[in-house]
Amino acid sequence: MTRDVLDYLDRHQSETLDELFRFLRIPSVSADSAHKADMQRCAEFVLNSMQKAGLTAEIIPTNGHPLVYGETTQDPAKPTILVYGHYDVQPPDPLDLWTTQPFEPEVRDGKIFARGATDDKGQVFTHLKSIEAWNRIHGSLPVNIKFLIEGEEEVGSDNLERFLKANSDRLKADVAVISDTSQYGDGIPAITYGLRGIVAAEVRLIGPEKDLHSGVYGGSVANPANAIAALMGSLVGCDGRVQIPGFYDDVAELTDQEKSQFAELPFSESGFLKEVGSGALFGEEGRSTLERRWARPTCDINGIVSGYTGEGPKTIIPSKAMAKITCRLVPNQNPDRVLDALEAFLRDRCPAGLKFEFRRFHGCEAFAFDPTSPWITAAGEAIEEAFGQSPVFIREGGSIPVVSSFQQILGIDTLLLGWGRNTDNLHSPNEHFHLQDFRNGIRASACLWQKLGNVQAWQVQA
Amino acid sequence: MTRDVLDYLDRHQSETLDELFRFLRIPSVSADSAHKADMQRCAEFVLNSMQKAGLTAEIIPTNGHPLVYGETTQDPAKPTILVYGHYDVQPPDPLDLWTTQPFEPEVRDGKIFARGATDDKGQVFTHLKSIEAWNRIHGSLPVNIKFLIEGEEEVGSDNLERFLKANSDRLKADVAVISDTSQYGDGIPAITYGLRGIVAAEVRLIGPEKDLHSGVYGGSVANPANAIAALMGSLVGCDGRVQIPGFYDDVAELTDQEKSQFAELPFSESGFLKEVGSGALFGEEGRSTLERRWARPTCDINGIVSGYTGEGPKTIIPSKAMAKITCRLVPNQNPDRVLDALEAFLRDRCPAGLKFEFRRFHGCEAFAFDPTSPWITAAGEAIEEAFGQSPVFIREGGSIPVVSSFQQILGIDTLLLGWGRNTDNLHSPNEHFHLQDFRNGIRASACLWQKLGNVQAWQVQA
Repeated sequence: MTRDVLDYLDRHQSETLDELFRFLRIPSVSADSAHKADMQRCAEFVLNSMQKAGLTAEIIPTNGHPLVYGETTQDPAKPTILVYGHYDVQPPDPLDLWTTQPFEPEVRDGKIFARGATDDKGQVFTHLKSIEAWNRIHGSLPVNIKFLIEGEEEVGSDNLERFLKANSDRLKADVAVISDTSQYGDGIPAITYGLRGIVAAEVRLIGPEKDLHSGVYGGSVANPANAIAALMGSLVGCDGRVQIPGFYDDVAELTDQEKSQFAELPFSESGFLKEVGSGALFGEEGRSTLERRWARPTCDINGIVSGYTGEGPKTIIPSKAMAKITCRLVPNQNPDRVLDALEAFLRDRCPAGLKFEFRRFHGCEAFAFDPTSPWITAAGEAIEEAFGQSPVFIREGGSIPVVSSFQQILGIDTLLLGWGRNTDNLHSPNEHFHLQDFRNGIRASACLWQKLGNVQAWQVQA
Repeated sequence: MTRDVLDYLDRHQSETLDELFRFLRIPSVSADSAHKADMQRCAEFVLNSMQKAGLTAEIIPTNGHPLVYGETTQDPAKPTILVYGHYDVQPPDPLDLWTTQPFEPEVRDGKIFARGATDDKGQVFTHLKSIEAWNRIHGSLPVNIKFLIEGEEEVGSDNLERFLKANSDRLKADVAVISDTSQYGDGIPAITYGLRGIVAAEVRLIGPEKDLHSGVYGGSVANPANAIAALMGSLVGCDGRVQIPGFYDDVAELTDQEKSQFAELPFSESGFLKEVGSGALFGEEGRSTLERRWARPTCDINGIVSGYTGEGPKTIIPSKAMAKITCRLVPNQNPDRVLDALEAFLRDRCPAGLKFEFRRFHGCEAFAFDPTSPWITAAGEAIEEAFGQSPVFIREGGSIPVVSSFQQILGIDTLLLGWGRNTDNLHSPNEHFHLQDFRNGIRASACLWQKLGNVQAWQVQA
């Protein structure tokens, strides 16, 4: 059955590309209020595409840019898939570094160049077009589909969580699908089955009422700059391990199978060092770079400031100091418990005479999809069929808050199926999407619905 | 003999105050180029005062504001005293906080109010007037005198060291006298016989070429913010002791006599905490607050910065970090050796993958006058005679670079004889000088020449 859909897609490649170009021509820059009307126009484009694909769709206003939601129920016995994506794009600046205009898409060297080509219009479009093809050829789909495309992903998804909470029944699904990540490398399609979580905090130490003369008072009062350094410097040991007691207690260790999968991935140390512009590897002893980035928790200082930071010397004891910290979390770590331990660790070590302030920011849990789950297996088969190559199973070190929200609010896991590449200049000038990746993505999406449709409830519960 | 001089001074109190007022009316603000002509006028006032006191004097131009130099040789067999002071003053801002105009001196409540009243015109003037009195009454002085009054003390004395180096023969003296410090407290005159030295440095750690995403890369590259914190945090232990190996090796310990002198000084812990606006004492274990401030070396971070320091969280690994450090030194510590040890300590601990840069600033050695020296004894007797009370022997935690320069370039010690008080609002609005302190200062100065003149060469060499 999928064969007919794939044939249809092959025959309509040219129209599909034309349509994508229309999508890409809308400058849907969510960060720039000058593009408010373009955002509305883009939401309408998505609405029309959903309707053309056979979904019942609507535009949902928010306090910011609208959401577009569409759905079709085929058979309550079949799995329901929630597809998430976003129609907003990053600002295109600096414009002078683009070879062609960011909102005038063009194919060169087998790549579609435009802002949003891969992030995320091009990837969202693969799912819209594969569903349209299924409906055209068969008049039905092998799964029930819910489509949620937002317009604020590039500006923090401020209104998404509220929508999810208020509509959790309506959005009920068995699994989510997001295509907003990348393949592992050129010609190495991937399923991202794990993400790290995050907690963030700010520490302030308040000392003397004003900066003091370091000669007159030095040695006789607690110096907030020395103290913030001592506190922050005690967080990570020379062995790269976080020193907060209990920090690793809940950490889910990689299975032996995951370790060997990571070890088998092509990885160039020198390429990595060149990528980050650094002279040497660093990190937790006994762990590979991929393990450190994908599956081990961290404690990084993102910013620190105290006292005089201009030119030359200044002989003061600063009156206060501040530092910002983020910890990346791995599966099984509880964000609140980590923040509690971090706060207690620092508070205990704060010298007498300084006031200690600790502020918590919003965080999210890590995510890991069981790599042996039938959903993953189904997605892997779909990718293999479309790309002619079975995907590798990877994790990513970053956090995708919507995945955590799906987990917590809707209680579902997410299949992260990225058709693009890390080198596609996401968020940079000359963003592009390989034509071949776009076409393989549509085909993989078409195969995906069939494969996911075959997953039986008893497999998932088991 | 001194008795006649003191009587003369008593009889001329009113004229002396009038003359000081003329001195104070000249707005000799060295920091403000609008006052360039006033600086010249003020230098001429000092020149005239020197000549009136019987010195051979001249104005010496520099690249900045002029120096005024005067001398009189009485008897080569007698000691030669180098008196240093400055005629420039701090800017008077904020003007609206002054009760009367800063350059319109006025006596209220027994205090002379004016910018420069105590720092340093009033104190310099005590020495000029006492010498004038000696010459009027006796036509001679009990010592040879060299007077060096500069106009750039408040802006860093940029041209002084060059002048000292170029004129070290001409400035040859047995001991220097500076009245630019304070009494220990109300009614407690003091001789400051020790100052701390200082070294200053800046450390930079250069990591990844640009700020990195803390999710994608966190845990796999050395974070310059974590590293600067770890380096700076390792400098001082929880016991308040500097952790640099060898840091205390050369430190001259206080004698038992000095310790008991410090312990006998009136000192209020709660008053001190209120003064600095802090909630608790802190410092090297087993040392009193005065010992910590005056006689123990320190390692203070004066500034530190890395990464994002604005509002809210930012998930980056900063590409670089910087910190500024000053160490206060005590007698016998060598500034270069301390900087070498500091640099080695930090360089050794810098994690792989970060570039370490260390920049040294200008520093100076600590100073301690042997408190049993005949010069100190003579000064103590002079103060006792004039103030009716023997002085306490104190140190100060700050550094006075000219004292270090006199030591290194001219090879002489300095008697720091402060007539003013810490509470005289130096550098602040409503600066003042107690009339009684001014008068006692002149009398003490008159006695000082006699007492210093009695010091025999064999006493000093012994």
